[in-house]
Amino acid sequence: MSGSGLLEDLVESLRCLPGVGPKSAQRMALHLLQRDREAARRLGTTLISAMDRIHHCQQCRIFTENTLCRWCSDPARRSSQLCIVENPADVLAIDRATHYPGKYFLLLGHLSPLDGIGPRDLGLDLLDARLQSGGIDEIILATSPTVEGQATARFIADLAARHGVSVMQIARGVPVGSELEFADGSTLSVAFEQRTPLI
Amino acid sequence: MSGSGLLEDLVESLRCLPGVGPKSAQRMALHLLQRDREAARRLGTTLISAMDRIHHCQQCRIFTENTLCRWCSDPARRSSQLCIVENPADVLAIDRATHYPGKYFLLLGHLSPLDGIGPRDLGLDLLDARLQSGGIDEIILATSPTVEGQATARFIADLAARHGVSVMQIARGVPVGSELEFADGSTLSVAFEQRTPLI
Repeated sequence: MSGSGLLEDLVESLRCLPGVGPKSAQRMALHLLQRDREAARRLGTTLISAMDRIHHCQQCRIFTENTLCRWCSDPARRSSQLCIVENPADVLAIDRATHYPGKYFLLLGHLSPLDGIGPRDLGLDLLDARLQSGGIDEIILATSPTVEGQATARFIADLAARHGVSVMQIARGVPVGSELEFADGSTLSVAFEQRTPLI
Repeated sequence: MSGSGLLEDLVESLRCLPGVGPKSAQRMALHLLQRDREAARRLGTTLISAMDRIHHCQQCRIFTENTLCRWCSDPARRSSQLCIVENPADVLAIDRATHYPGKYFLLLGHLSPLDGIGPRDLGLDLLDARLQSGGIDEIILATSPTVEGQATARFIADLAARHGVSVMQIARGVPVGSELEFADGSTLSVAFEQRTPLI
């Protein structure tokens, strides 16, 4: 649309957003220019300062602009429990849905030797040092219920066992509110194996 | 996710993009932080400079960072033909799909008295002056085939008629490649009324 190329640059830049193809990028650019330049400028400055200032919490690798994240620096949260998750969004989901009172540790991925992702890439040296320094009684594994997530969980369980820390894993089973007939075979099989007493 | 609120600010800012709700905004923010900080910074600076430097072409109201847009400043394009469209995206669509050799005029909307959008808001004073100054032989109306688009087209047709300029409208009819049974009644009715000789 533009004489030389600033609008084309804008459309192209917007495509760095996940799920935004050429058509949505064009729609977004025109919308911002036509209707909301102030918000677009604000987004611009926020993007730059967020990318410059947000880094990982030194203790748990959650994103924060401070040395320690909101959870690690919260004195009301139990330091003896540590929930291990793969992705930042998992922390938010657990926080919203549960009353988990402890702290988190963020892997930012899972073990994947073929992709060259080893224990150090998941910050497991940091976790090792933290377990070494004591104070943690229980590790709760909340990695994804996938093959890779399960392999990562096993690896961390072994690590925790070496430090004599008890290791739990969040329950697998049929999702609440869904019809049993739609549950897949492996889920049903796990649900039978791990049946719990009702009364 | 962040200790105080920069990540929350980023998620909130991303919601100025059309079609982006809280969940996609969070996914976008985490994706950029985790995988593509350089692109995010680039998007930030491009957004700011685009919002500051892109304005409307003085002649046709298309977005450009120069005085005249790419089309108005192109000496190879016929100045005697003027295609009138509602939205910037329409110009791009016509440019991609047709061999239209003339220039454009952008309304950036349609007449809508209830919303307080009158002729001046659509730049029709600018169009009037341009028709007055001569050199335009044919106006091609490509406003949307809606009630408002059609009312706007009629208004512009009257304006052009006062300047003795011929006024055409792009054809309505059944869309190419679609099944006849799925065409709506008004489209079919127009298609019958405006039938053209085949041989």
